[in-house]
Amino acid sequence: MTNTDLERAQTLITSIPDYPQSGVNFRDISPLIADGPALRAVTEALIAPFDGQFDIVGGLEARGFLFAGTIAAIAGVGILPIRKAGKLPKPAAAVSYSLEYGTATIEGPDVLKEGERVLLVDDILATGGTLTAAQALVADLGAEVVGSAVVLELVDLGGRSLTGDVHTVFTG
Amino acid sequence: MTNTDLERAQTLITSIPDYPQSGVNFRDISPLIADGPALRAVTEALIAPFDGQFDIVGGLEARGFLFAGTIAAIAGVGILPIRKAGKLPKPAAAVSYSLEYGTATIEGPDVLKEGERVLLVDDILATGGTLTAAQALVADLGAEVVGSAVVLELVDLGGRSLTGDVHTVFTG
Repeated sequence: MTNTDLERAQTLITSIPDYPQSGVNFRDISPLIADGPALRAVTEALIAPFDGQFDIVGGLEARGFLFAGTIAAIAGVGILPIRKAGKLPKPAAAVSYSLEYGTATIEGPDVLKEGERVLLVDDILATGGTLTAAQALVADLGAEVVGSAVVLELVDLGGRSLTGDVHTVFTG
Repeated sequence: MTNTDLERAQTLITSIPDYPQSGVNFRDISPLIADGPALRAVTEALIAPFDGQFDIVGGLEARGFLFAGTIAAIAGVGILPIRKAGKLPKPAAAVSYSLEYGTATIEGPDVLKEGERVLLVDDILATGGTLTAAQALVADLGAEVVGSAVVLELVDLGGRSLTGDVHTVFTG
């Protein structure tokens, strides 16, 4: 990785106005994910503050799975897949949280050892509801969240007030 | 990676009888994914026949994203996320396919270069519908599928008759 790769990675995040609804500026990280050196640079930047401090990486379905995969391979750890409700045959824990309309639930499998140190990862921090629920889920699973990391924080949405400290590679 | 890690990885795939419905024997790879050395060994086994022959890895949502991530990091390539319908703001191609009841659609973003060589990856090969649709999707995107790789092939379901040749790490 070079700083150049990380700088270039940021230019690969594009904006799509009025998607999925009028007034929303959708951030598309597909071009960044498709670029090998940019993906590598972002993955190393996600890991950097937590290097050697986590035993497993918790990825939030679905795009968080991509970065959980790259982090796992580079850090030499396994993955805790944090799933949307109804996907796991025997969820060991579940946490529900509020959305703009209604609620959502995430679930985790029974794979953590007591006291294991988990780094949570997702692609984008928006309102922070899912990430905050994931932090609670890991605690319910008997493990410890050592940090939360996202590729892009949408600062205007104020998710950080809900999640607490989050390591962000880019802000926008 | 050692052969021991790969052998141990296979023992980490568990069976859950009668899930999601009576008569179905659900295979749970969560314990394998959560184990760093096992995940590494399986990732290297997924890559082995295609080493140096692909420019990007295409992962099938959602669990295929986990292995697309580990493969991308180890092979030094980017990821083409192949998504369920309605998740991408501007899908560049879409392919529909039959399920037992009804149809499903997958979509891909506009990130491939003409002639790029794609390795497709998913966790489990069952009836093969999604993987076959993904092969067609990559062709529609103007790229070339150099291979398809899965962690576990459920041989009794005969998916291979639909997909053509698939590299499988484990069968069951």
